Amino acid sequence: MNPPYEVDPWHIRETELDLGRLAQTESVFALSNGHIGVRGNLDEGEPSGLPGSYLNSLYEQRPLPYAEAGYGYPESGETVINVTNGKIIRLLVDDEPLDVRFGDLESHERVLDMRAGTLERTMRWRSPAGARIRLCSTRIVSLTQRAIMAIKYEVEPLDEEVQFVVQSELVANEPLPGPRRPDPRVAAVLDAPLASEEHFANDDRVLLVHQTRVSGLRMAAAMSHEIESPNKRLVDSEAQEDVGRVTVATRLKPGEKLSIVKYVAYGWSSHRSRSALHDQVAAALAGAELTGWDGFVEEQAAYLRDFWEGVDVEVDGDPEVQQAVRFALFHILQAGARAERRMIPAKGLTGPGYDGHTFWDTETFVLPVLTYSVPDAAADALRWRHSTIPQALDRAAQLNLPGTCFPWRTISGRECSGYWPAGTAAFHINADIAEAVGRYIDATQDEEFAREIGVELLVHTARLWRGIGHHDLNGAFRIHGVTGPDEYSAVADNNVYTNLMAQANLREAADVALAMPEEASRLGVTAEEAASWRDAADKMLVPYDERLGVHPQSAGFTDHAPWDFLNTPPRNYPLLLHYPYFDLYRKQVIKQADLVLAMQLCGNAFTAEQKERNFSYYEALTVRDSSLSAQTQAVMAAEVGYLELAHDYLAETALMDLRDLAHDTANGLHLASLAGAWNALVSGFGGLRRDHGALCFAPRLPETLGRLSFRLRYRGSLLCVTVHPRQATYSLRGGPPLRIIHHGEEHLLEKADITLPIPRAQPTLPPPHQPPGRAPRRHHEPEQDQAR
Amino acid sequence: MNPPYEVDPWHIRETELDLGRLAQTESVFALSNGHIGVRGNLDEGEPSGLPGSYLNSLYEQRPLPYAEAGYGYPESGETVINVTNGKIIRLLVDDEPLDVRFGDLESHERVLDMRAGTLERTMRWRSPAGARIRLCSTRIVSLTQRAIMAIKYEVEPLDEEVQFVVQSELVANEPLPGPRRPDPRVAAVLDAPLASEEHFANDDRVLLVHQTRVSGLRMAAAMSHEIESPNKRLVDSEAQEDVGRVTVATRLKPGEKLSIVKYVAYGWSSHRSRSALHDQVAAALAGAELTGWDGFVEEQAAYLRDFWEGVDVEVDGDPEVQQAVRFALFHILQAGARAERRMIPAKGLTGPGYDGHTFWDTETFVLPVLTYSVPDAAADALRWRHSTIPQALDRAAQLNLPGTCFPWRTISGRECSGYWPAGTAAFHINADIAEAVGRYIDATQDEEFAREIGVELLVHTARLWRGIGHHDLNGAFRIHGVTGPDEYSAVADNNVYTNLMAQANLREAADVALAMPEEASRLGVTAEEAASWRDAADKMLVPYDERLGVHPQSAGFTDHAPWDFLNTPPRNYPLLLHYPYFDLYRKQVIKQADLVLAMQLCGNAFTAEQKERNFSYYEALTVRDSSLSAQTQAVMAAEVGYLELAHDYLAETALMDLRDLAHDTANGLHLASLAGAWNALVSGFGGLRRDHGALCFAPRLPETLGRLSFRLRYRGSLLCVTVHPRQATYSLRGGPPLRIIHHGEEHLLEKADITLPIPRAQPTLPPPHQPPGRAPRRHHEPEQDQAR
Repeated sequence: MNPPYEVDPWHIRETELDLGRLAQTESVFALSNGHIGVRGNLDEGEPSGLPGSYLNSLYEQRPLPYAEAGYGYPESGETVINVTNGKIIRLLVDDEPLDVRFGDLESHERVLDMRAGTLERTMRWRSPAGARIRLCSTRIVSLTQRAIMAIKYEVEPLDEEVQFVVQSELVANEPLPGPRRPDPRVAAVLDAPLASEEHFANDDRVLLVHQTRVSGLRMAAAMSHEIESPNKRLVDSEAQEDVGRVTVATRLKPGEKLSIVKYVAYGWSSHRSRSALHDQVAAALAGAELTGWDGFVEEQAAYLRDFWEGVDVEVDGDPEVQQAVRFALFHILQAGARAERRMIPAKGLTGPGYDGHTFWDTETFVLPVLTYSVPDAAADALRWRHSTIPQALDRAAQLNLPGTCFPWRTISGRECSGYWPAGTAAFHINADIAEAVGRYIDATQDEEFAREIGVELLVHTARLWRGIGHHDLNGAFRIHGVTGPDEYSAVADNNVYTNLMAQANLREAADVALAMPEEASRLGVTAEEAASWRDAADKMLVPYDERLGVHPQSAGFTDHAPWDFLNTPPRNYPLLLHYPYFDLYRKQVIKQADLVLAMQLCGNAFTAEQKERNFSYYEALTVRDSSLSAQTQAVMAAEVGYLELAHDYLAETALMDLRDLAHDTANGLHLASLAGAWNALVSGFGGLRRDHGALCFAPRLPETLGRLSFRLRYRGSLLCVTVHPRQATYSLRGGPPLRIIHHGEEHLLEKADITLPIPRAQPTLPPPHQPPGRAPRRHHEPEQDQAR
Repeated sequence: MNPPYEVDPWHIRETELDLGRLAQTESVFALSNGHIGVRGNLDEGEPSGLPGSYLNSLYEQRPLPYAEAGYGYPESGETVINVTNGKIIRLLVDDEPLDVRFGDLESHERVLDMRAGTLERTMRWRSPAGARIRLCSTRIVSLTQRAIMAIKYEVEPLDEEVQFVVQSELVANEPLPGPRRPDPRVAAVLDAPLASEEHFANDDRVLLVHQTRVSGLRMAAAMSHEIESPNKRLVDSEAQEDVGRVTVATRLKPGEKLSIVKYVAYGWSSHRSRSALHDQVAAALAGAELTGWDGFVEEQAAYLRDFWEGVDVEVDGDPEVQQAVRFALFHILQAGARAERRMIPAKGLTGPGYDGHTFWDTETFVLPVLTYSVPDAAADALRWRHSTIPQALDRAAQLNLPGTCFPWRTISGRECSGYWPAGTAAFHINADIAEAVGRYIDATQDEEFAREIGVELLVHTARLWRGIGHHDLNGAFRIHGVTGPDEYSAVADNNVYTNLMAQANLREAADVALAMPEEASRLGVTAEEAASWRDAADKMLVPYDERLGVHPQSAGFTDHAPWDFLNTPPRNYPLLLHYPYFDLYRKQVIKQADLVLAMQLCGNAFTAEQKERNFSYYEALTVRDSSLSAQTQAVMAAEVGYLELAHDYLAETALMDLRDLAHDTANGLHLASLAGAWNALVSGFGGLRRDHGALCFAPRLPETLGRLSFRLRYRGSLLCVTVHPRQATYSLRGGPPLRIIHHGEEHLLEKADITLPIPRAQPTLPPPHQPPGRAPRRHHEPEQDQAR
């Protein structure tokens, strides 16, 4: 497999249209502002891999069926729906519809410009009847005006006079292709989820209002157009229940150009009336027309200048990774920057995968990036979690537990997981949320957030842990029957990751109760309760296998039979599609970093020697059937000193979608894996860890990467860290002085840069190995790709 | 709750009709011969609790839905269907339909006669218009002619001349009431599962042929009638697709009687043609007519004389238990005696509960009774299991395991469990089958069975255990990630019951491979393989908690938090309807005997002191939300010396259905619980255990029960054991001399009876206690029933 996109630091450029990979490219070229998301479908609607337009948190409910019912099973699920498609602009060229499958596509280019925030498409096409045209369309989903998508669409004849008819549409309830095989990762396809409430057309404007049938959410979409043509033109519009259309017809000679700017405004609400929504999108359109196309282009570029200023990462020595990390940051921005107290789904708004749900990965992998670059966006994501506390309290009560049980997967805040051993039992999500809260407060010292949002989240999650665990006769605090991050194990006792994260959660809650006694007492926290959290944290059991000198992932794990990797053919990966859970759960085989993630997030609980031994032990068992895993392995490989291996894992996580490594980018991007590119660089080679009250770094760079530079916002300062293989330089680009820790030594960073030497990594064990065939792909040795 | 039935040693008699308890009585009054089963519905069809007519193994398939799909999940389930109802005889009295809900029911009696094998109903009814009549119907499901049900139906006027119209029917696709609430124990109701293939009526005969829509099984039902009336009568017949009807009209004066004998013949096949099935039931009808009503009555009584001769159990001092144990044995006979290489479902053919599936309970609880009383029936049940080896091999291959994986629940032999942690993971069913094979061979020395059936079942199940387990670094053999009998725990490591049963299975297979080398080598068994079974058995890990001095049910069980019984209100039982599996699995709470069952079936693995300590420990945790549990607790309570407690558990298991203790007798009888009455008496107070080559007894009887006498068939002998509180007498009633072991001492029982003293039971621990509110109900203190 050759890289499908040109390697370029600031652009993702495609110069050939591969119809077989259309769905994957639609995800890569998706535009979003966290409120609206549109896949990179071709303007004319067909051919398409998977049409997709999404509004954050607009979902339909569907029943969750069970072969055998059980108490507490969620009765209904939620699925993101494909909303009214405003992207469609069809074109007739002398009465021949533009369709790239017919005629000759003489040239094709799509460019995602990560500084401009635009998707530009240019093509030359010769119709079956021989007319040659040039088309150029540019799409913006505005980061400054959240309700607006704008498209500039230009066509011109190349050889002789041509009659153009352009049909610009809004289409609701588009038919969607079904999944090719039953795969839980593919969203349930819901037929025609939108019931029409209003349709309206006038001049160059159309407006459609719909409501979802079961969840009862109302949405409106409207479009208006600015049309420029040198010659006479006819403009007409019409609307029916599920389609609105503005038609423009004109004749042009070579050198003449038809230019249409289409503004599409979206709005949705669970409460507002039809007329209120109608007016809302009409007003947004008026604002868009006032701004105008050039205004949108400028606003977008300015917004992105600010963004890159605070977050850009530079990597020398690996241009593909350089491109990929910017691609990653761009999509994280798109998903999170303006989500504004809505959730950030696992796929952003780039596709229907995982039903559009959000999981723990947002808090654990995506929010670190946002916390240190766009902290307000991290706060908003946590405000969304906070807004779902009522559902999480109800769920906990249903499960006979105190505090909150945040859902394993959800859109609205209700639990939507239909398989409890890998869903509800993964209680660690509660500690992951608490960790994200603590990280945000530490990074921003945002007292208002801490009081309004943080205390409640920390207290309720701590209560859960106190209630879910118990003391044994020796006084140790145990947490039994839960599932850690590794989904090839489930429902085990004393999962090290869960216990350590719960420990941190309990301590953080006890600390905040002390720091904010008024808020805590409003939640009914007494000194006794806070003391019981500290006690549980202090007595937390962390199993350790003395015989092997490693931590078992959960109690008893190291006594399980090892997976028979030698007799597992490559075609049997991912294992979950070829082996029963029964077999996976009872053996030593790991889907994704679990104990190894505990070593990253709770590093103080492990000695350096334990980290090295554990890393090697788990490396040999981890198959990375989850796209979440590579980044954590990159981080810990860097920490224990396997820098080349860390580089390989970095490349894997960074290129997950650009090279479609998990074979399901078609359903949407892997946002947490993209965030992993940043995590692998910043927490891996930069060695960033959070220790209370200071930023810790332990940078280490392989010789192949000559230089790494990244920026962090921390407590009002902007810090720039530049790492070379032998030394690192810390610079303050603004804000007050910062205490930083470099390889264990504390320094006060003021105006002057500080350059410090990097101690050599000296692993004491033989190099780790992975299960046969499951080593990370050396991205710089593409011939190895044939092995898959 | 007063006992709903008169206490009588050989009859179940109801003298009042309680419409609210109709469904429960229909189960109690069900008749079956293992091939045909008919619930005790009133002749006139209405009112009914739950209409039901069943043919063993005639099922419909239905899709099993999953909220989240998984590899190896069964895609379709099987559900027993309500077949063509041949019981219906409607009556018009002067144009008023007989319906007990209207008019006056002046007297009502139903009697199940356990020596005659009949259900007799007599009633006097006054129609709303004032006509008084007497009706008497007697129903037989023939134990000698498997295809036949016969009904003698007699009506007479009591005061004045009456016109009677009798409509005798065959009705397919009867509408069924839906379940009142989502409860997995209630069968899925399938609407109209039968598609008509043929219908035919002539004179007093009607024949209907149908086929199930998805599973494609064909069934035929036919009826003919013998009509006696002193006066002129009109007889007419008709047939449509789903109904056939013979109508008899006559006028009678007081003292005159209309008598109709209705013969109904059933047949079904997955292979035979419509005409073959048609002919088969027509021929069965001809045979029935030749036998005649009196012939059926005589054959039935003779068959039952033989049965009771070999199996009757007499208990002094508790007439209710005396009645209940005969009721139990009668229904076990009905379910198993003539199943003839079909399965024995958990509910027999008495109702649609559990979808008509068979589980492990048949081998573990029902087959001991049959093995020692009607051994051919036990052999047939195991021949049925043997016939499903192909499906079990396929299932094992699908699960990445060698040998066979017999299904947790099934009709056809395919796995139908839709929740793997409490289904497929309960691999112990394979050892339970092996145990039943070993028990049968030991009891009968049936060499032909051993060669044809036994070897294969033992070898394939042993292969499963060898493949599912693994050696750890210390050489111990472990079985991880499986579920034992207790369904409030799941997917745990080294479940003691499973490991010990697997150990016995492996040894039994190695022994049989040695004893029958030719058969074993035909299955590919080598000396190496057999040696690996012995090794695994010898090295089997049995966890033990040294600190508490008890065996944990599974590794780590005794470290779980105890269930909070004090805060569990009585209304929250059964717990599975009020708490999530998550919570049940991770705590010390037990649905049904698991470790305690291991102590019964693998008693040699425990010292007497361990048994006592374990019994007390688990007694305090066991809530008996399963009807399977009480009998095992009775057996082990007797062994460790708590004789009154054993008596209470005996009563609970014996009265499960007669007193509807589990509140779901409406959906069918609990066959394994009924078998438990025998197990509690014979293995409990009789102390029967199987030790290779001899029958072991350790009888012990509480003073309240003055005498217990039971019979066993063993290796061609009929043994009678009579137990008094201080001594036991062993008598040979036929066959060769027997070695028996009485409280550890061996004796050779020849013609002369042997009477031996019984040592006093001397428990060393304080009396055990049960979870609050979960003590067995003292059946002789009925006022305690109010507590529920």
